[in-house]
Amino acid sequence: MRKIAESTVRRLSLYLRFLEHFEEQGASTVSSEALASRGGTTSAQVRKDLSFFGSFGKRGLGYDVSELRLRLRDILGLDRRYRVVVVGAGKIGSALVQYGGFRERGFDLAAIYDNDPAKIGRTWNGLTVRDVAQLERELRHHPADIGAVVTPAEAAQAVTDRLVACGVTAILNFAPVQLQVPDAVTVKTVNLVLELEALSYILANR
Amino acid sequence: MRKIAESTVRRLSLYLRFLEHFEEQGASTVSSEALASRGGTTSAQVRKDLSFFGSFGKRGLGYDVSELRLRLRDILGLDRRYRVVVVGAGKIGSALVQYGGFRERGFDLAAIYDNDPAKIGRTWNGLTVRDVAQLERELRHHPADIGAVVTPAEAAQAVTDRLVACGVTAILNFAPVQLQVPDAVTVKTVNLVLELEALSYILANR
Repeated sequence: MRKIAESTVRRLSLYLRFLEHFEEQGASTVSSEALASRGGTTSAQVRKDLSFFGSFGKRGLGYDVSELRLRLRDILGLDRRYRVVVVGAGKIGSALVQYGGFRERGFDLAAIYDNDPAKIGRTWNGLTVRDVAQLERELRHHPADIGAVVTPAEAAQAVTDRLVACGVTAILNFAPVQLQVPDAVTVKTVNLVLELEALSYILANR
Repeated sequence: MRKIAESTVRRLSLYLRFLEHFEEQGASTVSSEALASRGGTTSAQVRKDLSFFGSFGKRGLGYDVSELRLRLRDILGLDRRYRVVVVGAGKIGSALVQYGGFRERGFDLAAIYDNDPAKIGRTWNGLTVRDVAQLERELRHHPADIGAVVTPAEAAQAVTDRLVACGVTAILNFAPVQLQVPDAVTVKTVNLVLELEALSYILANR
């Protein structure tokens, strides 16, 4: 498959959300204009985005909702299941484990780790917090696809290095640190405070 | 002030997190190398980032932690307070209202709105869910700096349009939609599912 831009992948996710909603409502076809409105783009861009993966639409009829939804799920890799390990059992870590949305999207939370004896052994949503000292040993037997780094900032790089050494190639980072990883590893960061500060910078410097 | 890049603002936030941690630990000076490690960059880049705002470091001595922390807070606009209104009182909206980290960083959650009669009137953290039909009238009397859009995807653009019409110029978007806003308005998006799907795309297409 041709390498496609990150911004295209993001739009495909947005189109998919829209198609899921549309299908729930019983719609069978959708126009590129409707998809464009959801992706913040133009219908020409929608047609271009989708043309990467073969032709779907029929001129004048639009796209078949169900067919396009399945095709996008396939393109985005959502028909496989992914093993996710979480490192850090603080507030956000425990919220992640309790969030039901992962499993229904194909992301199985396999384990949660911490180094705090007060947290090790606690159980959330059927998952018991494990000692991070066991990380390497356990990942050797049960490799993970994605590592969620939910530690304090000071610990995040070291934890990431350990996950990468265990063969994890996709990191979901919640710590306020720019993680350093080899080229073959991908990091996505989710951090509310960083986004808020980006807004406050703009508001303060207008 | 010179316009600085979004990536620079993000690094300034990361340096600030690090300085806060350093100061708590009683450190008085910090090197550009240490800041670089946290920002995922080089010490030359750190010096360049900080030179935008005047000279701080002393050759061979590094940066004064307390002075640099205060200066970064000032640059990022964190010494002002911001009024935030939240639209959407579902799971994420209510989690936002219950999250204590906003207020201590200068973001005052002023109101939360929904259109669901079953939610209007509920109270979280001392904040009562208000009828979104009152949005325009209330924002006219008490303008907001930031609008957090936590509605279903289908409603997000219309809510954003209403916030923008009320003079809100900074939007924190949690809905899986690319919002369309005028040039003078800034949008930051926080969405875990989009980040996960970006990772699954990469894992599936390697």
